[in-house]
Amino acid sequence: MRKTKIKIALLGAGNVATHLGRAFKNAGYKIVTVYSRTIISAASLGGELNVPFTDNPVDVPEADIYVISVRDDAIETLLTKLNFGDGLVLHTSGAMPIDIFKVYTKNYGVFYPLQTFSRFKDLDFKKIPELVEADSKESLKLLTSLASSVSNIVQEASSDQRKKIHLAAVFACNFSNHMLAICYKILSDDGLDAQLLNPLVIETFQKALSDNPSNVQTGPAVRGDTNTMKKHLKMLNSYPAFQKIYTFVSESIQDLSGHLK
Amino acid sequence: MRKTKIKIALLGAGNVATHLGRAFKNAGYKIVTVYSRTIISAASLGGELNVPFTDNPVDVPEADIYVISVRDDAIETLLTKLNFGDGLVLHTSGAMPIDIFKVYTKNYGVFYPLQTFSRFKDLDFKKIPELVEADSKESLKLLTSLASSVSNIVQEASSDQRKKIHLAAVFACNFSNHMLAICYKILSDDGLDAQLLNPLVIETFQKALSDNPSNVQTGPAVRGDTNTMKKHLKMLNSYPAFQKIYTFVSESIQDLSGHLK
Repeated sequence: MRKTKIKIALLGAGNVATHLGRAFKNAGYKIVTVYSRTIISAASLGGELNVPFTDNPVDVPEADIYVISVRDDAIETLLTKLNFGDGLVLHTSGAMPIDIFKVYTKNYGVFYPLQTFSRFKDLDFKKIPELVEADSKESLKLLTSLASSVSNIVQEASSDQRKKIHLAAVFACNFSNHMLAICYKILSDDGLDAQLLNPLVIETFQKALSDNPSNVQTGPAVRGDTNTMKKHLKMLNSYPAFQKIYTFVSESIQDLSGHLK
Repeated sequence: MRKTKIKIALLGAGNVATHLGRAFKNAGYKIVTVYSRTIISAASLGGELNVPFTDNPVDVPEADIYVISVRDDAIETLLTKLNFGDGLVLHTSGAMPIDIFKVYTKNYGVFYPLQTFSRFKDLDFKKIPELVEADSKESLKLLTSLASSVSNIVQEASSDQRKKIHLAAVFACNFSNHMLAICYKILSDDGLDAQLLNPLVIETFQKALSDNPSNVQTGPAVRGDTNTMKKHLKMLNSYPAFQKIYTFVSESIQDLSGHLK
């Protein structure tokens, strides 16, 4: 089947669905509808992609591939509301197993783009690793062809592997971002310019990505500089949540380095 | 006084001293000696810079500028062992106040390069912000001329401001690196390739540096996805230190976003 003949129904209109919709459209697939629980979201993405949209699952037309990109806890509810026939049904979640589809449809799989998406920030989809998993060789073939047409990095991963990767990504992405957010908060509360630290942050990440980050760990904790650590904890007196993080992250740094044992 | 006539004594031979020594030499200063508590470190840096070296404070010759770049808790001991005369004495620590010099010398200041240094990784010193503070206008003039000759970003900061910035840098640099180290550990323990997450990490930091990181926070905590968070904590059963970090960082993300209150 040629790509231009393959019909995709996009179920969801959030950040991931938006970026996927753009990538599928650019790759030449025919998006037959955008569904979202709220008509405004459906209209907004449908409008951007110039395709029909709806907030009623019953109105979703037949498609070759159904891509479900909604909150994890909304996937199963949505599965109960549609009849997918022989279509390939995919979700895009890192944390949800492939088994969720079992009782609802015949052909299914997972298409997990390993990236953090913001609606208004463009991304080069070709460079995003896509983790794929399918119920059968046939489903895997169609899924892999879909994934390869939007990305250069397509890799099979089991549900177990994917959920490990998703957990690890929470640390690498969400939690490292929060460390920067704490830095920003501490400095801006004192009228200091957080941008002064940009060269330090850039160097930190370049170094961490070129090695096991544990091997390039610096700072008071890994040096065992308890004097500085005590002073820092005192300075954080008005930020009890940051104090806890300081304590436990420092302990964990020392654990992982095998230092001071 | 021309730079080539200004004599610098480098007291310390660790990562910071090494990078500073290279930068001073490149800028045309005359390094008269490298001192370190251990003769091997002194010899190694002295050899690289092609200047005399010693492990005996008494052998440090007279200089116009003494740059002390040793562990925070070793600065004061070193101060008791030398006679600095009219020389400008500087330390390079983020956490130590300028007052530490008061009883030991006449002319003093702080030269804090806001960067994380590894001995064997080259850095463009010109792009490293230098935070400076001095005891007098005269000291500040000499210090600023020194700092400006090695870096394009020289900024005055009081001891109070500098220690705040140093604390913030622990979160932005040391702790964010540890988040990447945890990610690496979780994946490599399972035989998974952590490099798969590089595009995600790069995007995370690009986004965080372009905004208040709190505004671009993503992940289960900021979405209030307690289901996924519970699963993640269970998956971390064999990593109790990471479990604590997961819990407290998630709480702090929710606090800071004002979400779920």
